[in-house]
Amino acid sequence: MSSSQIVRNPFAAFCRKALADIQAQGRYRRFTPLARRADAYPTYEYTHAPRAEPGPDVTVWSANDYLGMGVEPEVQEAAIAAIRAHGAGAGGTRNIAGTSPLHAALEAELAALHGKEAGLLFVSGYVSNQASLQTILTSMPGWICFSDRQNHASMIAGIKGARGATCVIYEHNDLADLEAKLAAAPVDAPKMIAFESVYSMDGDIADIAATCALARRYGALTYLDEVHAVGLYGAEGGGVSQRDGVADQVDIIEGTLAKGFGVHGGYVTASSEIVDYLRSAASGFIFTTALPPAVVAAALESVRLVRRQPWRRERLFERVATFRAKLDAAGVPFMDTPSHIVPIPVGNAERCMRISRRLLDEYRLYATPINYPTVPRGTERLRLTPGPFHTDAMMDDMVSALRTLLREESLDEQSGATSRAA
Amino acid sequence: MSSSQIVRNPFAAFCRKALADIQAQGRYRRFTPLARRADAYPTYEYTHAPRAEPGPDVTVWSANDYLGMGVEPEVQEAAIAAIRAHGAGAGGTRNIAGTSPLHAALEAELAALHGKEAGLLFVSGYVSNQASLQTILTSMPGWICFSDRQNHASMIAGIKGARGATCVIYEHNDLADLEAKLAAAPVDAPKMIAFESVYSMDGDIADIAATCALARRYGALTYLDEVHAVGLYGAEGGGVSQRDGVADQVDIIEGTLAKGFGVHGGYVTASSEIVDYLRSAASGFIFTTALPPAVVAAALESVRLVRRQPWRRERLFERVATFRAKLDAAGVPFMDTPSHIVPIPVGNAERCMRISRRLLDEYRLYATPINYPTVPRGTERLRLTPGPFHTDAMMDDMVSALRTLLREESLDEQSGATSRAA
Repeated sequence: MSSSQIVRNPFAAFCRKALADIQAQGRYRRFTPLARRADAYPTYEYTHAPRAEPGPDVTVWSANDYLGMGVEPEVQEAAIAAIRAHGAGAGGTRNIAGTSPLHAALEAELAALHGKEAGLLFVSGYVSNQASLQTILTSMPGWICFSDRQNHASMIAGIKGARGATCVIYEHNDLADLEAKLAAAPVDAPKMIAFESVYSMDGDIADIAATCALARRYGALTYLDEVHAVGLYGAEGGGVSQRDGVADQVDIIEGTLAKGFGVHGGYVTASSEIVDYLRSAASGFIFTTALPPAVVAAALESVRLVRRQPWRRERLFERVATFRAKLDAAGVPFMDTPSHIVPIPVGNAERCMRISRRLLDEYRLYATPINYPTVPRGTERLRLTPGPFHTDAMMDDMVSALRTLLREESLDEQSGATSRAA
Repeated sequence: MSSSQIVRNPFAAFCRKALADIQAQGRYRRFTPLARRADAYPTYEYTHAPRAEPGPDVTVWSANDYLGMGVEPEVQEAAIAAIRAHGAGAGGTRNIAGTSPLHAALEAELAALHGKEAGLLFVSGYVSNQASLQTILTSMPGWICFSDRQNHASMIAGIKGARGATCVIYEHNDLADLEAKLAAAPVDAPKMIAFESVYSMDGDIADIAATCALARRYGALTYLDEVHAVGLYGAEGGGVSQRDGVADQVDIIEGTLAKGFGVHGGYVTASSEIVDYLRSAASGFIFTTALPPAVVAAALESVRLVRRQPWRRERLFERVATFRAKLDAAGVPFMDTPSHIVPIPVGNAERCMRISRRLLDEYRLYATPINYPTVPRGTERLRLTPGPFHTDAMMDDMVSALRTLLREESLDEQSGATSRAA
């Protein structure tokens, strides 16, 4: 090859083509710029520019700060005090001067919440799943991970990332299928069952006790993602495993500080030896800057409040029940889940995007469209998460807007189909 | 199998054995609890309990908040204002109400810093490397990634995570070896060169211009990690690629907000199409809660300050030069690197841990011991990062303590060796 020859890399052309395909499929994502108003949650300012004219207020119906803990004054003040005391960042990995006493206190608090010996913080729930699962499943040869078909992308990333481990997918929440697959596996292979308590897109809930009974019978380690349950379920917000009284039967409970606790970061809790092993071996834990002390202080305050204030959970579920009753009375179809999540089925990507867009533009209501690959094609939906701060009046607005838009979009498509057929 | 039979999972026993091995090798890590004093950086309080008696002050010599931006009052105030305005967390993924105008503003600021069309935030530098590299290297079949032997664990995680891609490791900063390997690869395979500017453990610096010239010749995409350089090098802190005037030759520049900028999080900058593809396809970006608005606001303020205040960089390098001169004058051996990093070679894991421990206990000085697997066995070291806030008096204390401890530990081992030989 002559030194003057230029070979072009094909990646830019690939990106253009891939983006055009995503657009053609109607699933290109534009992020809606929304600035949360801490003084008026779930109201957000809808604006592109942080320092320009104030934008219109929008009521948000899809946030994952389920209890509004992120705007709780005590939580905010804990963060502010930590910034004043310790600065804006941690300044290093946990091993390089990044372990403050706050980090240790939060890990102990989370261990206590789940009745475990130890806890370990990660920079996100995604990383806690990916790093923990990958590290465990590469620790010994021959691991077989039995993974629920609807497990979150972060769990899949960890399981698939463990080269050498075998992944056996069982049908969603199907314990007969799980048992058949456990029984078919070699007796002496190290086994894990990886599952979630609340599945966030369908809002259904796993049978943790029965899953753990199978795990005991077949010698499987149990890894439970309680990301959409912590703070919300159980006497102290310890998740569905706490509500069902089976936390002690689960080997590893993973959770997040960014949803029910309203702050940021992820964690696992387990026995001291498992946590110490992950601490010592997980690349995604070791080689990353520690969470900022302010994030840790806010999360610590939030967990402490949520543990001792069951009224927050009661208020949440009262609001969810009221919202479902209003949808029902108005004849708006919704998936009636056993959790706090209220999905509104819409059925195709373009319609889902369009209804979300019209809610925002015409009604100043925000509900995230959930499309493939987050859910299977044909099951596109709006995912609503009513919370303690959604008033009856806000609910009436949303129910009325949904009734109108679902009817209009349905009529439009029927007439469109007729004219296309003609 | 009878239903009463209990099969024991072997993982707990594995953890006990693995931890015992790590301890036996002298590389078991205990995190030193250090609470940074924002009013007296680089002074930290050495204490296990966040609300107990105040612990003794310690001068920290290993933090990665290289410029002390995390304790800059304007940066702290930006974070505090954002907490008051928007709460403690983002409340959702970027697609689920988690994109505030602050996020967009910071992405634009980072793109401008590196002269790129677009930027994308991740929850950490580790995740930005892992998610971006894995996503790119699985985008098309047949990718070959040429990876510097000393690349960071996060880059390795992304490259190895890309099943189907081929990883070709070239010798560290060895362009002849890189070219030979590029030339030996199939002409039409999509290629990437993944490397760092400042390698943080040895403190050496890559020849970016020459690497990019090879990339052009062989049609390779260039992916440059500037994690230990952003904020510190170049007229505006755009990294070594800015200092060398070659940022426009690099396809993807990755950086962190947690070191030179003193806050938290990671990012990539590149062409609009590459960033839009990563935004649309990278699982580690899509399925994770957005950075808290307060983190983003603090980072935005920090980047803006660092860009327009070259005196911060000048002060840093003056302090580094002064410290090296003092080490030299005292006869303390150090690795004389072309960067701001000052490694003190120690040579084995136990001695490294012991000297670090004695610095802390006897001198109230903290320097992180760097052992395997972060560096190869036999090259264990203390890694010092003098910064703008290290005074001459602090330097004299450190130099004197190192001189004493290195001599004592060396004498101890010689006498120990003699008595063992006897």
